[in-house]
Amino acid sequence: MPDTASTEALRASTPFPHRHLLGIAQLSPPDILNLLDRAEAMIPVSRQERKSLPTLSGKTQINLFFEASTRTQGSFEIAGKRLGALVVNMSVRTSSVSKGETLIDTAATLNAMQPDVIIVRHSAAGAVELLSQKVGCSVINAGDGAHEHPTQALLDALTIRRHKGRLAGLTVAICGDIAHSRVARSNLLLLGALNVRTRVVAPRTLLPRGIDQLATEVHTDMEAGLRDADVVMMLRLQHERASGRMIPSVREYYRFYGLDEEKLGFARPDAIVMHPGPMNRGVEIDPAIADGSRSVITEQVEMGVAVRMAVLDALLSGGAR
Amino acid sequence: MPDTASTEALRASTPFPHRHLLGIAQLSPPDILNLLDRAEAMIPVSRQERKSLPTLSGKTQINLFFEASTRTQGSFEIAGKRLGALVVNMSVRTSSVSKGETLIDTAATLNAMQPDVIIVRHSAAGAVELLSQKVGCSVINAGDGAHEHPTQALLDALTIRRHKGRLAGLTVAICGDIAHSRVARSNLLLLGALNVRTRVVAPRTLLPRGIDQLATEVHTDMEAGLRDADVVMMLRLQHERASGRMIPSVREYYRFYGLDEEKLGFARPDAIVMHPGPMNRGVEIDPAIADGSRSVITEQVEMGVAVRMAVLDALLSGGAR
Amino acid sequence: MPDTASTEALRASTPFPHRHLLGIAQLSPPDILNLLDRAEAMIPVSRQERKSLPTLSGKTQINLFFEASTRTQGSFEIAGKRLGALVVNMSVRTSSVSKGETLIDTAATLNAMQPDVIIVRHSAAGAVELLSQKVGCSVINAGDGAHEHPTQALLDALTIRRHKGRLAGLTVAICGDIAHSRVARSNLLLLGALNVRTRVVAPRTLLPRGIDQLATEVHTDMEAGLRDADVVMMLRLQHERASGRMIPSVREYYRFYGLDEEKLGFARPDAIVMHPGPMNRGVEIDPAIADGSRSVITEQVEMGVAVRMAVLDALLSGGAR
Repeated sequence: MPDTASTEALRASTPFPHRHLLGIAQLSPPDILNLLDRAEAMIPVSRQERKSLPTLSGKTQINLFFEASTRTQGSFEIAGKRLGALVVNMSVRTSSVSKGETLIDTAATLNAMQPDVIIVRHSAAGAVELLSQKVGCSVINAGDGAHEHPTQALLDALTIRRHKGRLAGLTVAICGDIAHSRVARSNLLLLGALNVRTRVVAPRTLLPRGIDQLATEVHTDMEAGLRDADVVMMLRLQHERASGRMIPSVREYYRFYGLDEEKLGFARPDAIVMHPGPMNRGVEIDPAIADGSRSVITEQVEMGVAVRMAVLDALLSGGAR
Repeated sequence: MPDTASTEALRASTPFPHRHLLGIAQLSPPDILNLLDRAEAMIPVSRQERKSLPTLSGKTQINLFFEASTRTQGSFEIAGKRLGALVVNMSVRTSSVSKGETLIDTAATLNAMQPDVIIVRHSAAGAVELLSQKVGCSVINAGDGAHEHPTQALLDALTIRRHKGRLAGLTVAICGDIAHSRVARSNLLLLGALNVRTRVVAPRTLLPRGIDQLATEVHTDMEAGLRDADVVMMLRLQHERASGRMIPSVREYYRFYGLDEEKLGFARPDAIVMHPGPMNRGVEIDPAIADGSRSVITEQVEMGVAVRMAVLDALLSGGAR
Repeated sequence: MPDTASTEALRASTPFPHRHLLGIAQLSPPDILNLLDRAEAMIPVSRQERKSLPTLSGKTQINLFFEASTRTQGSFEIAGKRLGALVVNMSVRTSSVSKGETLIDTAATLNAMQPDVIIVRHSAAGAVELLSQKVGCSVINAGDGAHEHPTQALLDALTIRRHKGRLAGLTVAICGDIAHSRVARSNLLLLGALNVRTRVVAPRTLLPRGIDQLATEVHTDMEAGLRDADVVMMLRLQHERASGRMIPSVREYYRFYGLDEEKLGFARPDAIVMHPGPMNRGVEIDPAIADGSRSVITEQVEMGVAVRMAVLDALLSGGAR
């Protein structure tokens, strides 16, 4: 790992060959490693331990969130501002946006204000890619429906690599509400591309069709799914989407799929525990595990700022545009 | 047109003689041309093609929006930040503001925080002028009820002048929901002051009393109204304000007043099509026209940033304060 | 008063010995005077009459408001930005935060983004202190339930000292909705610590239990409560909290407790009138008094920016961290 490499050195050596970051699906394994290495080098800057050149000085970043997300929007805002960008938040409730055409008009309008990058979150899968086709600037997907959330997968991979020293050859178990999770999808794509053995573990009703194409193994039982795993990644149970038909009750869910000391015992003794947040404590995870010594949950948030700084820098400072 | 003039040169030559921008009604023709010339010179800066001196560095700009407006607020925010201002957004829902007295208290409170300029949007005509009387800083009207929206009229005029090379002597048709439109009012005032022939075209129920004092001609028929027009400016049908009594149905409205290929055929062959946004596609305009080669709708948005930079610079950097 | 002292001089001479500002209760009299002196020196900077060194350059300030507050959040935002901080607003509606555990998770998440200071407003007394125990940065209480609002008490004290030349020995009457007021509580603690004679004046139903431990005198009659007072501080009647049982009617309330010319006549001829805002004109105060020559209400707002700059500077620039 290039712990000693400077941001400048990385930038000089490996330009990032894309204009947008729409999903992990568009990235090659070298692209992914490029971004992880850039993020690694960005960590001291993201922590403000080392001063960065304001590489985004004079650049305009628009955060366009059709769904509210305090933590993701805040992370992108801090990332952009720490690199010197001029950041403008434009929160739009989906309720006021009824038509695909309107999304395109919004894109054309924002594009006319000459931003350098637009960060978009939208409730519809594919909305961010559609928008990217209508603008002359870079676009970053901050989550579109149940489709992709690429910076989350990158920050998860960075966190794993820092703890395990590598990615290839590891076994990662992703557990819970797979059906509604763009986090699961982006993680499976990224980890699969880097030769990580992936398992999804969930009740049958929370497994989407075709999941066996994405994951190495599919389990409905936590004991089998977690056995010898290096990483246990829990997902938020999306109450609002998972109707009563899908799970019997929160209590039943916790009993069979909530991560507690006993179930974590099936994983490797040095397994780490992850969660993209926000957590439903006592639903998908025992609070004692969430706060325990094997949890790296707050470190994921910290890596989030570094990853977003790296992505912004890769898209806006490179020679590939 | 002073395409080659620098912002500094303009500033030195023609100070802007007002402290506030409350409406087009308060401006003389030379004042209007002053702002248009400043905006013209600001375009390369607004596009970030040319670096500007941060002329608003150390200045505090408050955006006080009593009505939500993602696009106008964003445009003012980007304009201020690109000039180096410290910008603070203060969104206040009208529901929580019941009394004129409270507006004055809000003004006094904000004024005590020593801003240099307050940008105000309010649902009541006259509210912005009232507020301006209670503060020691500059105030810019970003839309007050059905009264005025001066920066919209300025950006429209700039867009027209760039396409037609002049304003005086042109014929501009403003079509649709005239009754509820501050955009129409400010445009009629500005264009009238610069010897542009103005026509309003709308069903009788959407024509406000006294409109014949403002427009050169008043029409209820699109064929007559658009004949030989140089510019066709469509307005958003304000569904929320125009009750069922005023228009028979959206379908009927589109049939008689929606801009389609056939109706646009009445205008001059080189006529341009404008819309202040956001559009109701298929209500007041055919999507094919909105996206067609004669549409300058996104250019209007682009000119919006240049105009707002010019206005901020004129009010805050001049010697007239 | 150190009117001529520079900010730099003060900083060098008296480091502020706390990491957080959670309440006046934690401050010694020298701590309070330290902050008041710093704020005094900060006034010309807060007014932008004198340029400051951007002492918070490179620092990240998060405004975390669980209750909406345009004026307090705006004041903190302006204070931070005028000192060069990177300011991020994160507004969270209390409705979406149901559990104390979630507050802690929010704290852990924000802390992982490596801010230097978090400004918190929350509807629950004690929530801000709880949050401060979970983060590695400074925390400033911007109001927690009916508990404390320390920067309001500091700006009130600064305003009084500037008008009266001193604090010790004065008589301050705090009138109205004491029961629901963190402003009253923080003021009573601060003024008591500096040997100011404090009186609370309110109907019995709006007096909290144990108020006689905090105030020098407790009155239910305005004549007795205001007699010979140097300062008359009116509080906002919190309609939403004070149910019909507590006060007979707004009209009755105004008759007995609203500050008008007659009741103000009981105070000293040079008494000043204060109100933390926003005012209910005609409920707790006669508009003629609010706007009269003895009112220092807008000056309180102005001192608010200076006090918040001083607190930010004291917590983030000192050697005590």
